[in-house]
Amino acid sequence: MVKHLLDLTELNKEEALRILELSKEFKERKENSLLRTCEGMKAALIFEKPSTRTRVSLEVAISLLGAHPVVLSSNDMQLSRGEDIKDTTRVLSRYVDAICARVYEHQTLSEMSVYASVPVVNALSDKHHPLQAIADVFTLYEKTGGLDFTLAYVGDGNNVCHSLIIASSIFGFNIRISTPPGYEPDFNVVKQAEMIGGKKISIFEDPKEAVKNADAIYTDTWVSMGFDMEEKERKKAFKGWQVNQELMAESEDAYFMHCLPAHKGEEVTEDVFESERSIVFDQAENRLHTAAAVFFYLWKEVR
Amino acid sequence: MVKHLLDLTELNKEEALRILELSKEFKERKENSLLRTCEGMKAALIFEKPSTRTRVSLEVAISLLGAHPVVLSSNDMQLSRGEDIKDTTRVLSRYVDAICARVYEHQTLSEMSVYASVPVVNALSDKHHPLQAIADVFTLYEKTGGLDFTLAYVGDGNNVCHSLIIASSIFGFNIRISTPPGYEPDFNVVKQAEMIGGKKISIFEDPKEAVKNADAIYTDTWVSMGFDMEEKERKKAFKGWQVNQELMAESEDAYFMHCLPAHKGEEVTEDVFESERSIVFDQAENRLHTAAAVFFYLWKEVR
Amino acid sequence: MVKHLLDLTELNKEEALRILELSKEFKERKENSLLRTCEGMKAALIFEKPSTRTRVSLEVAISLLGAHPVVLSSNDMQLSRGEDIKDTTRVLSRYVDAICARVYEHQTLSEMSVYASVPVVNALSDKHHPLQAIADVFTLYEKTGGLDFTLAYVGDGNNVCHSLIIASSIFGFNIRISTPPGYEPDFNVVKQAEMIGGKKISIFEDPKEAVKNADAIYTDTWVSMGFDMEEKERKKAFKGWQVNQELMAESEDAYFMHCLPAHKGEEVTEDVFESERSIVFDQAENRLHTAAAVFFYLWKEVR
Repeated sequence: MVKHLLDLTELNKEEALRILELSKEFKERKENSLLRTCEGMKAALIFEKPSTRTRVSLEVAISLLGAHPVVLSSNDMQLSRGEDIKDTTRVLSRYVDAICARVYEHQTLSEMSVYASVPVVNALSDKHHPLQAIADVFTLYEKTGGLDFTLAYVGDGNNVCHSLIIASSIFGFNIRISTPPGYEPDFNVVKQAEMIGGKKISIFEDPKEAVKNADAIYTDTWVSMGFDMEEKERKKAFKGWQVNQELMAESEDAYFMHCLPAHKGEEVTEDVFESERSIVFDQAENRLHTAAAVFFYLWKEVR
Repeated sequence: MVKHLLDLTELNKEEALRILELSKEFKERKENSLLRTCEGMKAALIFEKPSTRTRVSLEVAISLLGAHPVVLSSNDMQLSRGEDIKDTTRVLSRYVDAICARVYEHQTLSEMSVYASVPVVNALSDKHHPLQAIADVFTLYEKTGGLDFTLAYVGDGNNVCHSLIIASSIFGFNIRISTPPGYEPDFNVVKQAEMIGGKKISIFEDPKEAVKNADAIYTDTWVSMGFDMEEKERKKAFKGWQVNQELMAESEDAYFMHCLPAHKGEEVTEDVFESERSIVFDQAENRLHTAAAVFFYLWKEVR
Repeated sequence: MVKHLLDLTELNKEEALRILELSKEFKERKENSLLRTCEGMKAALIFEKPSTRTRVSLEVAISLLGAHPVVLSSNDMQLSRGEDIKDTTRVLSRYVDAICARVYEHQTLSEMSVYASVPVVNALSDKHHPLQAIADVFTLYEKTGGLDFTLAYVGDGNNVCHSLIIASSIFGFNIRISTPPGYEPDFNVVKQAEMIGGKKISIFEDPKEAVKNADAIYTDTWVSMGFDMEEKERKKAFKGWQVNQELMAESEDAYFMHCLPAHKGEEVTEDVFESERSIVFDQAENRLHTAAAVFFYLWKEVR
């Protein structure tokens, strides 16, 4: 059985912890022992949507492993000319050792995983963002020295929120969530995470309640790509969920986290974003180390 | 004299067989003896049209050789701003060790070959598709254990058909062709192939006649890029040339071949495409090994 | 302090000469002593505008050093979605060891250099083109055997002209300039160059005066990207500044130079462009060797 990584539920705790450990080793590059260990491997990096962080972190991670990244935008492919995902996936499986894709619809990844004979990795879909969540957990693991932390997520119950919820169950940290009515995370994701076990997933109406005693306060853009039509409506709905000094004051030692890009003045104020409590660029950097760890794990340690 | 590869006529039988042999070695990667043998080399891969298989197989092949692929779409270049092919080719010749291009008009490649001081390789033009034909011959060489096979091509007398016709003369296999009236292969290509010698090129009105005793039945899309305006007319004209169970029944042991992307329900039925007789993904995979062989041959063995 | 390269004024004479020396070594590849010396390094190559020479020379240079180039077009990034340069720069600084960008507005590079913790290199902006000027100086250094030459620049007082003016002060060669009225180089650039010292910057109304006793006559397109609206007006204004046989006759031994792409029949006649005196393709080739030298210098010798 090929190991895919579509929504984090593919990892058990042991595997997830191993990826954290590998991330640490990559970051420290102890004697470069892991670098260039995947020479001759190739990964297709498919981008239906553009992305700075995802693109650069993945391309650099794969090249550091000594593998070759083949970067494909939807323009580079014939998908638009009606070539089906089934055939494209079977062809790519003959050329590369992993298919990593940022897609509009999670369904595309699910379909790929059915036909691929190499690992399929979700680089970001409308439903999940597992590589981001792994980077976020690693960042808090570094900052707090363990996994016994409490993460408060405030804002849109989106793909990032979903992956953090599943991560909380697998890695075993506490998560507290507050979203405006109508923007809650997918109930099935919450249920799925609760079935995995781990710590309690707490949901609050009031963002101030959610951030109490949190070790980190996390938010994301209010208007994700594809929701531009709803911009006005969303900005109104999310108004009370802005992460500002007032909200940060509810939990004095908490870090501020954001997966970027940030819209300052909307989901977060500039002063919070630029404050010493903000660890957003550490999160961004850790996308690189954790991505390298994920590919090393899938290529060298699975099976 | 620089060796180019625009339409396969540049290869004599000995050279063509050497490329098959190299392809076999690359596929088997015996002690990786050929891998990373072209370190420091660079190839420009230019795409006027997008292409999944051509792009990925070439990029991966070149990277496996240890060389660096510089992938350029027409957007990446200033060709659109009126920079002439003559100057672009002369500049690229200073930077890279081969220019490989997928172009709308074969004439672009001919012009490049005049001004290039490095090999120019046709990655696909309106007239020829030599890299596909080499992969196809290698696939049948693997499957039948030699070159004494009969290939039946049914459908559009297009670029792929042209390169298979020339390949039949160089490699010395039998080719039997049936196209609807008005969609015959270019008469000059047939004449050119016949002048090379090799086995007989047989042309049939009836596709059922063409596929008799064939070792493989090959088809391609009815509506190649650039012919979208003629779609309705073409679908009508090609109706009797669909590769379906009935046609496959005319030659019971024949493989089904297609250079992809396939339009199931048009030039081929889904059951034939997905059947055990279909070797389309082996053809696709062999694009990689044969491309590596072609570049190794041009860089290391010519002269 | 991080060393950036935005407009050449960042280099003193000693540093500039060292880059020429490295360029020579790279071109000769003496025992390949400099090749693959930057393994594990990564450079982001950002293109707001497409460019054949800049793109290919940089990508190949970086790959020859053994480093990994991450090529990003504006389509690949989320800049268009309002991600600010400040954040993008801070994120990229975590992933790569240099940021090299071709931008519409020089201001973008200035802003990047404020927030970057890695070197920012100008791959071409509306104001300056330092990598081109270094390649040009290296070309004349090769051709004349030193730096005691006289360069005549005839035509538009644009980015290339600006960088040649600054280069003349740093490297210490003579520059003579003639532009149509209204198309003079930026006065501040001339003043800045004069303050650096070096040889005299001479400006002439009459192009024939400017090219007298020159070792090389240099021109560039009359209608740079972004000025297409002014095409008609510009062609009229620049008419007397065409580099043709008549102008070349004013300085019999002078080389012809052009940074490409050239518009033959406009700023230069085809006979001059194709003549033996034309060294445009040597200039183009030297973009590669000098780019490798610049990155080697920034990565291995600064500090």
